[in-house]
Amino acid sequence: MLRLGSLEDAAHAIRVMQVRGAPLIGATAAYGVALGLADDASDARLAQAIETLAATRPTAVNLHWALARMQRVLQQVPQGRTALATRRDMAWNEARAIATEDKAANAAIGQHGLSLLRAKRRGDRPINVMTHCNAGRLATVEHGTALAPVYAAHAAGLPVHVWVSETRPRNQGLLTAWELAEAGVPHTLIADNAAGLLMMQGKVDLVIVGADRIAANGDTANKVGTYLKALAARAHGVPFYVAAPLSTIDFTCASGAAIPIEERAAEELGAGDVPVVNPAFDVTPADLISGIISERGIAAAGALGQWQS
Amino acid sequence: MLRLGSLEDAAHAIRVMQVRGAPLIGATAAYGVALGLADDASDARLAQAIETLAATRPTAVNLHWALARMQRVLQQVPQGRTALATRRDMAWNEARAIATEDKAANAAIGQHGLSLLRAKRRGDRPINVMTHCNAGRLATVEHGTALAPVYAAHAAGLPVHVWVSETRPRNQGLLTAWELAEAGVPHTLIADNAAGLLMMQGKVDLVIVGADRIAANGDTANKVGTYLKALAARAHGVPFYVAAPLSTIDFTCASGAAIPIEERAAEELGAGDVPVVNPAFDVTPADLISGIISERGIAAAGALGQWQS
Repeated sequence: MLRLGSLEDAAHAIRVMQVRGAPLIGATAAYGVALGLADDASDARLAQAIETLAATRPTAVNLHWALARMQRVLQQVPQGRTALATRRDMAWNEARAIATEDKAANAAIGQHGLSLLRAKRRGDRPINVMTHCNAGRLATVEHGTALAPVYAAHAAGLPVHVWVSETRPRNQGLLTAWELAEAGVPHTLIADNAAGLLMMQGKVDLVIVGADRIAANGDTANKVGTYLKALAARAHGVPFYVAAPLSTIDFTCASGAAIPIEERAAEELGAGDVPVVNPAFDVTPADLISGIISERGIAAAGALGQWQS
Repeated sequence: MLRLGSLEDAAHAIRVMQVRGAPLIGATAAYGVALGLADDASDARLAQAIETLAATRPTAVNLHWALARMQRVLQQVPQGRTALATRRDMAWNEARAIATEDKAANAAIGQHGLSLLRAKRRGDRPINVMTHCNAGRLATVEHGTALAPVYAAHAAGLPVHVWVSETRPRNQGLLTAWELAEAGVPHTLIADNAAGLLMMQGKVDLVIVGADRIAANGDTANKVGTYLKALAARAHGVPFYVAAPLSTIDFTCASGAAIPIEERAAEELGAGDVPVVNPAFDVTPADLISGIISERGIAAAGALGQWQS
């Protein structure tokens, strides 16, 4: 159990990935702003808190979405002794709202995605879902994104089995395996490299992954390795879905080419002095994506404009 | 330094992957037969030695090719005290011949592949080769297969840089990084998951991998994860070559579907009690392969019949 007691705690937790997963990063950043205003709720302190948190990680847009939302709400408060106390309360309320909305969005994603799993049911054979990284309860406030439909299916009594890829270099697949085991959902861990063979062998009914940022045209940045799974899914006619709340869609970003890809430390590969390149994300082009599952329903990746409000 | 002093040593070394790489497995098996005949060169002992070695690993066809060659040569010797001593000598000679021919084949592969690298030269920019697993000096008797053209280019003074994928779960990429460092060839280690992004970014000029078994139609079994790289290469117009001696082509195997895929122990993923599926190889369809580089030259994957003799 990790308790974050200050702005600095929150920023550190995001930077070193004690907290990860786009939706959870967003909610943590919102609470980080509230924590940052504890002793000083001035405009200057608010701006500094937002700047500190915004600099932690570049790719997940939920971070910037949550900070922009906090700023929009909190900048409306005028200066003054009482006003600053009010700003503190408003910050906690807004952070709580972000967290509560994330739970609700993910629950809705679960129900929308459930229809896709139901459609894949063939007799008593388990529905084989492949995922990548961890887009489950440990990556969100509750339910998960990619795993929300899996949990919904399990709760509905559908037989479901999840192929969990290791997700090098940080091995977030082990988080997915852990939370699926806790929930009693059958699953099997594989090396990331095995995804293509399993699809070739007909052992995957659909792929569902989360997202760190979805561009306006549907191109999707997600944990590095996602793109390779999308290519294999296309080669074998396996549907490939991205599950994410609307807060992950960046309508200001025209296409995947404009999404910044975080380069992380060589140490993550644990190979001593060997030269390393370690991008944390890759971009899956919209045309490889069967659909985006959000709290609003399921849309073609090329038709996200319907959700812009 | 590992010294193999008996048939059992040789079989163990292949089984637990102290020795790996299809060509080196073949040569080691040949020497294993010779070692197995040290005290008893009878037909029964020969049959038992071949059976023991054949059972070590299923996918690399060089193992079976080398054992069949040893059997074909050694079964010609009639029984009798002197004859059995002759058989022992013949076994050592044949094993040495297999090793020597492997060196020569790989040197030729290096020269044929060099032409492909030369064609990718653009000014002073290094030629960026991506490989997978280890198909270098550590996987063969000498030179390597996939890395032979890289070493040939380096020796010829061409600027070359190798993208080395980690190759989970056994991390043979570290072997590749080690031997490239020893040879002074610039290289960068990546997570297997990063291969698609690098190709999307235009950072890969060509992919060269080795093979464990090539079917008559050109479908190629190689270290698991190879197929995902081939899919990404196709998506981005990056040439994808397989380098292997003729001993890796199994003309009795019509297509990739007939190649046995070894399933290895769950422990290789190091995830404790988590259920695991761990295939060691996958199959890249011939239509994703730009060409096969052997000691005879470069052929389209669908036109290997020209090399059948």
